[in-house]
Amino acid sequence: MSDTPTARPASDLPRYDVAVLGGGVAGLSIAWRAARAGLSVAVVDPAPGTGATHASAGMLAPVSEVTYTEEPLLRLGLASLAAWPGFRAELEEDSGVAIDHRADGTIEVAGSADDMAVLDELGAFETALGLRVERLTGRECRALEPMLAPSVRGGLLARDDAWVNPRLVVRALLTALSRAGGAVVLDRAVAITPSGGGDLRVRRESGEEIHAGRVVVAAGARSPELLDGLPGAPDTPVRPVKGQILRLRGPRGFLTRCVRGLVHGTPVYLVPRGDGEITLGATAEELGFDQRVTAGGVYGLLRDARELVPGVTELELTETTVGFRPGTPDNLPLIGPAGPPGVVAATGHHRAGVLLAPITAETVVALLTGAPVPEVARSCDPGRFLP
Amino acid sequence: MSDTPTARPASDLPRYDVAVLGGGVAGLSIAWRAARAGLSVAVVDPAPGTGATHASAGMLAPVSEVTYTEEPLLRLGLASLAAWPGFRAELEEDSGVAIDHRADGTIEVAGSADDMAVLDELGAFETALGLRVERLTGRECRALEPMLAPSVRGGLLARDDAWVNPRLVVRALLTALSRAGGAVVLDRAVAITPSGGGDLRVRRESGEEIHAGRVVVAAGARSPELLDGLPGAPDTPVRPVKGQILRLRGPRGFLTRCVRGLVHGTPVYLVPRGDGEITLGATAEELGFDQRVTAGGVYGLLRDARELVPGVTELELTETTVGFRPGTPDNLPLIGPAGPPGVVAATGHHRAGVLLAPITAETVVALLTGAPVPEVARSCDPGRFLP
Repeated sequence: MSDTPTARPASDLPRYDVAVLGGGVAGLSIAWRAARAGLSVAVVDPAPGTGATHASAGMLAPVSEVTYTEEPLLRLGLASLAAWPGFRAELEEDSGVAIDHRADGTIEVAGSADDMAVLDELGAFETALGLRVERLTGRECRALEPMLAPSVRGGLLARDDAWVNPRLVVRALLTALSRAGGAVVLDRAVAITPSGGGDLRVRRESGEEIHAGRVVVAAGARSPELLDGLPGAPDTPVRPVKGQILRLRGPRGFLTRCVRGLVHGTPVYLVPRGDGEITLGATAEELGFDQRVTAGGVYGLLRDARELVPGVTELELTETTVGFRPGTPDNLPLIGPAGPPGVVAATGHHRAGVLLAPITAETVVALLTGAPVPEVARSCDPGRFLP
Repeated sequence: MSDTPTARPASDLPRYDVAVLGGGVAGLSIAWRAARAGLSVAVVDPAPGTGATHASAGMLAPVSEVTYTEEPLLRLGLASLAAWPGFRAELEEDSGVAIDHRADGTIEVAGSADDMAVLDELGAFETALGLRVERLTGRECRALEPMLAPSVRGGLLARDDAWVNPRLVVRALLTALSRAGGAVVLDRAVAITPSGGGDLRVRRESGEEIHAGRVVVAAGARSPELLDGLPGAPDTPVRPVKGQILRLRGPRGFLTRCVRGLVHGTPVYLVPRGDGEITLGATAEELGFDQRVTAGGVYGLLRDARELVPGVTELELTETTVGFRPGTPDNLPLIGPAGPPGVVAATGHHRAGVLLAPITAETVVALLTGAPVPEVARSCDPGRFLP
């Protein structure tokens, strides 16, 4: 009879260059790009792509999502927007999955003279940034999108605005990651602990462990559960911002562009897909991890959508979803070293996880490989929140 | 080698005294009562209790569901309401399943002086029928149901109104039927054909057949698919009336009574269950078998519910359901012989399937056993639609 040690020696553990904790659009993008760069990678997530990414509308629209004072976020978004065409081409080629990328523009509409004044200011701001934007009359709006309400007074057309279907992006990323040799571990990561030789261990909910040279925490609004309390880690200032979002289904071509508007002070958007689905979003609620679809959330979205596009009432309501945006105090993500050596944060992307996926992946892979970090991403260093 | 006949002789078929086609509240009630009366019974339904019964709110409120001109339906409903306490007692005893029967009354509210005038007329009508009904001020309404809107001008309290949870009724009926020796065949009936010796055959979607002395068609809005074209059968004038209905979930005691109201000409109701669920209904749409939950249907229900009970916006929206009421030209059901000898219809219950279950079962079992048919049910003879 021989001794049977209950803990296996470290050398027996599965070992990767990089463990990415969280399989949303950020984590999967990082993992795919890291695998492409020659690193051995494992993503740890019990259900990849089912969190905030699953809820999100997938708009690649850095300007309309940003307030005027948030210039670092705007620069980050514009840089990532510029990286999207190349990212998309490689992703679709690596995976063989089309991600329903559409670049048919956004029409942002105003229902009143006051709303139009707001849009005129936004248009001037966009023009100053070098973006193509056109002022439209109400009639011109309806000529482009006949389903718009007669009450629409005017609007802005941003011809270059694009969007993707985030669920197809997840499918493409999982395929591309797998083809690049990356692994997906279908389990929840619960703790990061130092190991011998500069390595890190990731404990899983099942009790198993993974051994990795570097650990990337890309767990969205759940990232503080992994980062907080690590030696040298700040109290991660990431909080869940609840969003309720609906999926409608109509005939193809019901809308051809993204339609956005401000209704009674609340922003609302309708994002059409190639298959006739329309994503209608979204609430923004500071309620912690409240998973409930509420009567008021659904009511408000449908009410506001009807104001812009009355015909939505005839569409099928196919899905009601709740997601949790990872919000931060300055609305900038946390991308960079956090906690003990080897731990990198990639979280806090708030409303812009899909848009920021390329720049996030580029930045994290630069940190992992020792390449220079893009200048525009330096504003995202988690160290800015250290005491 | 012996001949292998592809059709089995009739004597080999499963044979029942009664085959009930359709396992909603009507069919299951008939089957249970028939089994209790000593008949051998099979219910044929691919998914019992998942049709209109699954959608329904389960109100036992014959008066508020009826227009003044529909006196035969009203008398039928009052007779069935009177039968419900005994039906419920036996059902709960036979099954051991509590059906969340609540008799805490309905409060019907008015948001304007015009609405209140309508309610005053209704109240006078109810009083003339011998029903207990009380006129309330707005303040008295809110004292009874504090969640009612401040805009409520007044209302009527019908203290005797009752309701049940139709999904628990189905569970109870299935258990009681099984305990009484009845069978459930999980398949769809597709045709009724005469057989030898006065018997009937029921062909199933699977291709199998059932042999029965009598066949009861209780397939709701799908009944014409089984009845039409039978020798001696009328073109069954039953059509689907689409209803969209929502389930909300709140704290227990959010509402304690049924709340009904007329909002901008549309009736809306909220039916609270013992577990905090609230059923909010319902649309009435002439769209055939359109299975779609629509943005407009959900929006309208939530908008109208908010007018009566603003706090519903805080409740979880747990379910959106579509059901098809079996409507008839005169809003009376079809209960009685239809088509060839031995075929009995029990359909066309429109909005009142749950309310009318006891009187329907009593009438059909009387027809099956040769007992006298209740006088009040004679108005339901399908023969009234024969040319």
